[in-house]
Amino acid sequence: MEFSEHIKTANVEDVVLRLPFQPPARGTLCITGHHLLFSDREADCCRRRQVLLLLRNIDAIEKRTGSGSSGTITLKCKDLSVIQLDVPGMEQCLNIAHSIEALSSLECVSEMYPFFFRPKDLSLQDQWGLSTPEKHYAETKELHERWRLSDVNRDYSVCPSYPPAVIVPRAIDDDALVKLAKFRHGGRFPVLCYYHRTNGMVVMRSSQPLTGANRKRCREDELLLQAVIDGSDKGYIIDTRSRQQSQQARVTGGGFESKANYDRWKRLHRQMESRGKALQESLIKLVEACSDQSHNMDRWLSKLENAKWLSHVQTALSTAGLLAECVERDGHSVLVHGSEGTDSSLLISTLAQLIMDPCCRTLEGFLALLEREWVQAGHPFQQRCAHSAHSHARLQQEAPVFLLLLDCVWQLWKQFPLALGFSEALLLRLATEAYASDYGTFLCNSDQERCIAGVKGNTHCLFQALLRPGEREHYFNPLYERMELAIWPSVHPQSLQLWEGFFLRWTQHARQLEENQREIRSMVIEWSKLTAS
Amino acid sequence: MEFSEHIKTANVEDVVLRLPFQPPARGTLCITGHHLLFSDREADCCRRRQVLLLLRNIDAIEKRTGSGSSGTITLKCKDLSVIQLDVPGMEQCLNIAHSIEALSSLECVSEMYPFFFRPKDLSLQDQWGLSTPEKHYAETKELHERWRLSDVNRDYSVCPSYPPAVIVPRAIDDDALVKLAKFRHGGRFPVLCYYHRTNGMVVMRSSQPLTGANRKRCREDELLLQAVIDGSDKGYIIDTRSRQQSQQARVTGGGFESKANYDRWKRLHRQMESRGKALQESLIKLVEACSDQSHNMDRWLSKLENAKWLSHVQTALSTAGLLAECVERDGHSVLVHGSEGTDSSLLISTLAQLIMDPCCRTLEGFLALLEREWVQAGHPFQQRCAHSAHSHARLQQEAPVFLLLLDCVWQLWKQFPLALGFSEALLLRLATEAYASDYGTFLCNSDQERCIAGVKGNTHCLFQALLRPGEREHYFNPLYERMELAIWPSVHPQSLQLWEGFFLRWTQHARQLEENQREIRSMVIEWSKLTAS
Repeated sequence: MEFSEHIKTANVEDVVLRLPFQPPARGTLCITGHHLLFSDREADCCRRRQVLLLLRNIDAIEKRTGSGSSGTITLKCKDLSVIQLDVPGMEQCLNIAHSIEALSSLECVSEMYPFFFRPKDLSLQDQWGLSTPEKHYAETKELHERWRLSDVNRDYSVCPSYPPAVIVPRAIDDDALVKLAKFRHGGRFPVLCYYHRTNGMVVMRSSQPLTGANRKRCREDELLLQAVIDGSDKGYIIDTRSRQQSQQARVTGGGFESKANYDRWKRLHRQMESRGKALQESLIKLVEACSDQSHNMDRWLSKLENAKWLSHVQTALSTAGLLAECVERDGHSVLVHGSEGTDSSLLISTLAQLIMDPCCRTLEGFLALLEREWVQAGHPFQQRCAHSAHSHARLQQEAPVFLLLLDCVWQLWKQFPLALGFSEALLLRLATEAYASDYGTFLCNSDQERCIAGVKGNTHCLFQALLRPGEREHYFNPLYERMELAIWPSVHPQSLQLWEGFFLRWTQHARQLEENQREIRSMVIEWSKLTAS
Repeated sequence: MEFSEHIKTANVEDVVLRLPFQPPARGTLCITGHHLLFSDREADCCRRRQVLLLLRNIDAIEKRTGSGSSGTITLKCKDLSVIQLDVPGMEQCLNIAHSIEALSSLECVSEMYPFFFRPKDLSLQDQWGLSTPEKHYAETKELHERWRLSDVNRDYSVCPSYPPAVIVPRAIDDDALVKLAKFRHGGRFPVLCYYHRTNGMVVMRSSQPLTGANRKRCREDELLLQAVIDGSDKGYIIDTRSRQQSQQARVTGGGFESKANYDRWKRLHRQMESRGKALQESLIKLVEACSDQSHNMDRWLSKLENAKWLSHVQTALSTAGLLAECVERDGHSVLVHGSEGTDSSLLISTLAQLIMDPCCRTLEGFLALLEREWVQAGHPFQQRCAHSAHSHARLQQEAPVFLLLLDCVWQLWKQFPLALGFSEALLLRLATEAYASDYGTFLCNSDQERCIAGVKGNTHCLFQALLRPGEREHYFNPLYERMELAIWPSVHPQSLQLWEGFFLRWTQHARQLEENQREIRSMVIEWSKLTAS
């Protein structure tokens, strides 16, 4: 299919662009296969204003008949910005709206912009990604005695959402893995994601066991978990569903690890919002509340409460805190899972690693963590981030789990401004890129899909791009001081705040804050240079 | 009366002291006329822990029978801290509690601690106070042509709550002032509090006119207001009551400036919480919400909404913004008043001056502003700050108006971290000192009362003490850069936040934040030293 099929009107003159906090501008609008381009009429090219918007960033489009024969198009973007275009001529207006609608919701991965984005300073030969299970294993020498790297999933046949290599106990061979993968939802058998150097305990993640109504067992699964705690008295399973939910899951073939068959594992249930729909609705309500222009304080606080977003933040952080306590304070290994093992499990394991491991708190360390625990571990980005808070499309697989992670990381960053090596700007950039990007990192739903689509050979990697010298300086934290200890976040409701940098980013207030922060940041950077020399 | 009458048991051994986040300590408790002193048993005097608490800081005291023959005393302080004492022997416990109750609520000003506080590095001969109407007038040369300094109130007979000197239009003589004072509630006739240098407009404040049910007039009052806008087309009256409230006030002898008699003044009504009781209840609810230990996010947000404190903050800031808009943007003079002119009028005029005038935003400028607009302008500190959020005493004249001011200033400071020359620590210190202090600044209810009690000759001035070299370094803002423009705060509910530094100051979370801020602050100070040299 050619993009041009979707473009009936490529150029429109005399369009008025309205952006928040800027005077309206009159100029030419141009629609290409992936972008909306606006240039104003300013004769002096140095002062000419150009706006380039990735069509993929558009979440919802609203058309309205204007006065006379013109029409107004309102574009609600996935980064929460809202753009308005006054287009002369109703037909032109409808053509433009139609093109934007079609081109912003292309489904075919290889037609998406990352396959066309060719910046001069990046080469497709550049190394893709920062971390893989292979690298992780190679770097963690302490693992080698009792753990091995298995390539049982090299052709993605054992678990379609896992990467080709995974870290498992040495005591379990590949044949056993093949068997026990059948016993776990979507084949997501327990794999190691974190080794805690100070006491040798580990964090594993998986999906739920398929015990079903008949309480099926799987000897290999039991042996694997047995091998994990070999030499220790017990381990913990953190189930991100309530006890009742995990019991009900048996009806549809799922289930949990029973005490009888996993006698040295203690199950802890912490109910997280596992249904993506509820989380998505929470985001929609929150964004609606944030854009409420009434000056009513009670209404705002009541809407904020009603959105329940901060409750989700609190639950995620406190469950991650629980996991970290089991490992760091109680000295036991932990397996974390919910139902599918592609959402809340990743959220919890990532946050727990940030809490416990100083290596994950550097700029590179954090990006590598996201690479391993989200991109490669099979978080279905394409499904989850298909729409953001504005779309009226029927919600299906959408869920802002990754955004919830970033919000939780921001809360950590806010509570420990010296302990994290990256800036708020990085979290904001990631929140934008996950929904619409020039890069291939967040394309597709799994490593297998990316492999089939040729993502690694034909697109650039965001994480590598963020670490380039020119970019890096925006994203490091000049206040950062490495701290070896765990950082225990306060999860009191009084300690958690709305992430205003993200949710209020298009308000005047946020502009002011941003400007202040920029100035303070540059002072601190100056300071560090001076004291370093 | 001797303090010793109240002290049946001066020393108790073997008392256990429990403070938040500290291990319990066992030692000796000692009650003096103004303090509670605890020293632990640590033999090494360098490590010995001593706690000295001003009894005046105690808001509420609770007694409980402990196990065996001991008793527990819980002290809830006006600075929101909570201290627990386990005292052996029920009789001793009751004696101690009785002494604390009596001594913490002394009513006689000259018995209070500021009259006994004699620090070595301050002399009673030191100049008292930073600013007076005299100084203010002398410094503002532009005023001299049309305004004069009147000492009509030199013996406090015209207005008992005003200072001896006030700034009024030259066109109005003292005889007229005497007459028109009778026409204003409590004698608080309109006086100048701010001159806006860029356009020559002024801010006046007063109390309500006593028009009563018969719509009385006062020719002198009308002439004074006429003289204020001489040469301009109109002025604004900002009435901090609703239109209905100001009409109802006529029933009890109060009233408002009618259009008929003040034809060049436009009245704007902005309802603020004028009843002190409602504001006090709001504070009590907020503090209760902040100490809620449940981990329930919904409950917290619902309590926060229900307390309505943030609504009061919003109303105060937006009314001050309105005043500043009238003066700075619209170019007209403003008179602000509510009923008594000792609370919300001061709140609004102070905030408006901070918004408009860079001179008020320095450390000295801010303290001088508080001196003029609160201490000398007759805010009844002794009545308003008699109790804080914990007392079960029947509320009478209490109202946290000054605390509300500090909270609003903190919101400004948060929104404009570079524009204010003082630190959050200053606001916290002032919030504590207003309720219980070693200094005489916040004693009594008016200049007259302070004069009668001999406060200036026999106590030290807090504001002068804060500016001493050793103290000053805690209270200046190292990021401060003078900005000539007005700073317009955002008053969207989304932009206003709970002042966690104050309301959550005794939680673990706040400790963490404080520590971080201290570290960042010292970095920035280092940086400024380096770049200055």
